Amino acid sequence: MAPFITVYEVGPRDGLQNEARAVPTEDKLRLLRLLADAGLSRIEATSFVSPKWIPALADASDVVSQLPRNAGLAYVVLVPNAKGLERLLEALGRGGPNAPQVDAAVFLSASETHNKKNVNKTIDETFAAFEEIVPPALEKGLRVRGYVSTAWGCPYEGAVAPERVVSIGERLLAKGCYQVSLGDTIGVGTPNQTRRILELLLARARPEQLALHMHDTRGTALANVLVGLEAGLTTFDASVGGLGGCPYAPGASGNLATEDLVYMLHGMGYETGIDWPLLIAAGELAQKLVGRRLPGKALQAEIGSRTVLAGTAGRS
Amino acid sequence: MAPFITVYEVGPRDGLQNEARAVPTEDKLRLLRLLADAGLSRIEATSFVSPKWIPALADASDVVSQLPRNAGLAYVVLVPNAKGLERLLEALGRGGPNAPQVDAAVFLSASETHNKKNVNKTIDETFAAFEEIVPPALEKGLRVRGYVSTAWGCPYEGAVAPERVVSIGERLLAKGCYQVSLGDTIGVGTPNQTRRILELLLARARPEQLALHMHDTRGTALANVLVGLEAGLTTFDASVGGLGGCPYAPGASGNLATEDLVYMLHGMGYETGIDWPLLIAAGELAQKLVGRRLPGKALQAEIGSRTVLAGTAGRS
Repeated sequence: MAPFITVYEVGPRDGLQNEARAVPTEDKLRLLRLLADAGLSRIEATSFVSPKWIPALADASDVVSQLPRNAGLAYVVLVPNAKGLERLLEALGRGGPNAPQVDAAVFLSASETHNKKNVNKTIDETFAAFEEIVPPALEKGLRVRGYVSTAWGCPYEGAVAPERVVSIGERLLAKGCYQVSLGDTIGVGTPNQTRRILELLLARARPEQLALHMHDTRGTALANVLVGLEAGLTTFDASVGGLGGCPYAPGASGNLATEDLVYMLHGMGYETGIDWPLLIAAGELAQKLVGRRLPGKALQAEIGSRTVLAGTAGRS
Repeated sequence: MAPFITVYEVGPRDGLQNEARAVPTEDKLRLLRLLADAGLSRIEATSFVSPKWIPALADASDVVSQLPRNAGLAYVVLVPNAKGLERLLEALGRGGPNAPQVDAAVFLSASETHNKKNVNKTIDETFAAFEEIVPPALEKGLRVRGYVSTAWGCPYEGAVAPERVVSIGERLLAKGCYQVSLGDTIGVGTPNQTRRILELLLARARPEQLALHMHDTRGTALANVLVGLEAGLTTFDASVGGLGGCPYAPGASGNLATEDLVYMLHGMGYETGIDWPLLIAAGELAQKLVGRRLPGKALQAEIGSRTVLAGTAGRS
């Protein structure tokens, strides 16, 4: 009955890119290895954005050329432009014939203002620029994933019309993306809106061509995931420990935590291929690498329950 | 289409009972007044448990005799035994003819071990003891609500069979409770389990006779609420700022936060009668009274967005 659900781990890129003190390359590789060993089959490893913009990911080439290999494991890396694709292909070449599968990802926002602030282009200009990334990547045998940010709402424009998201999603699929991941960048999405977006998109795409990338900023991430599951989606993005995702305050929720997602999926009887204790170990390593408590709730419950469980019966 | 949803605020009792330093009575009344002004129509105000057990609520009589009145607003207070009922009736008498509506609540656990540790009785003994609370309360014209703790899982026994929860819920309704609130005391519930419990109970009870009291310990609270909404339930318990609910660690999630629940309900088009800015003000007051950051996510997002929103566009 319950199919296999692919958990798309985005922590190593989305989470670590915002760290003021860059995590050393060898520590990134430790985290990637542990995530791979925990059974994650899709991991967003890094971004080939200019090091001037995101110094924390300046080691993208070194990360990609040393990616741990596991059967069935594929990575994805963000590729913002032709230069980024060139760097990715060079790094893959360095990995030699043993290089693991690495997909390229292109990204834009559903709202013009956020897109302009993020990539300094209009949405149409961004699609035009994809011409120098997507066709060459496909020609080189890479698969390409598409990301749509601010699909539920924009910090500048407010609500985003579902029709707008649908149109951008369709264009990405038409460009040759194998999957479009819809991002609730500021965590404002609620279930009826999610149902509406998916209904419209599923009239034009197959469920496996879509993924949800929810944020838990207001506690609604898993309710939206439930809507996605009911609509037949089989891929959901999440971040180890809830790392990253532009939370408003330290300790506040940004990205949906991988542990919270996996906890709910396993509780519902879905297969994920993920080993719970190793996933928790990865969350604890992520905390150690960034040097602070991460917001993932199931992670904190696991850590807390080791010492406190016997005292939590509580009153009423 | 979307009906009115009753948000059952439990913070003043469930949240404040665990504070090591008791909140002064006048501060409790300030919080109750602000919650009432925010439009909450059901508020769990205090508990007539013995002050020896829960010193933080030793002022229950003083709170009840001074409860703020609002049209359509009813309170509920926990009544653990005949002595508690006596104290409640005395306090209501002190309030005079202007006393607001106050319902009594009785409580037990779905698991024997948790019930034994919580009230030092077996489940059957607890039902027997209800004889000295429920019939006398009903006779005095009070309504009685029933609480079932550990309905999704027990910290001592693990998973709890849905059939067990159904049997206890039925017995409470048969005793004369107008509503049974099912509590996920340790926050382990996932949607299929919730659907199963509700399917079984709704074969024996009307939707308005049931309420969900979810905890967000692992991020699943609102996904379970969504299942409840889809099953036709119209009452959900929550706590201002996510106060209380036995979280494992300071800052970890226990009770579903009222703001998170209301955010999702309003986003789905439901009416609640609740004013968002006043609800946020109540959350901020609750933080001030307990002297620490509360785990409610929408509350923190609101507080954070006042100063940080312009800087949160983030990268990709």
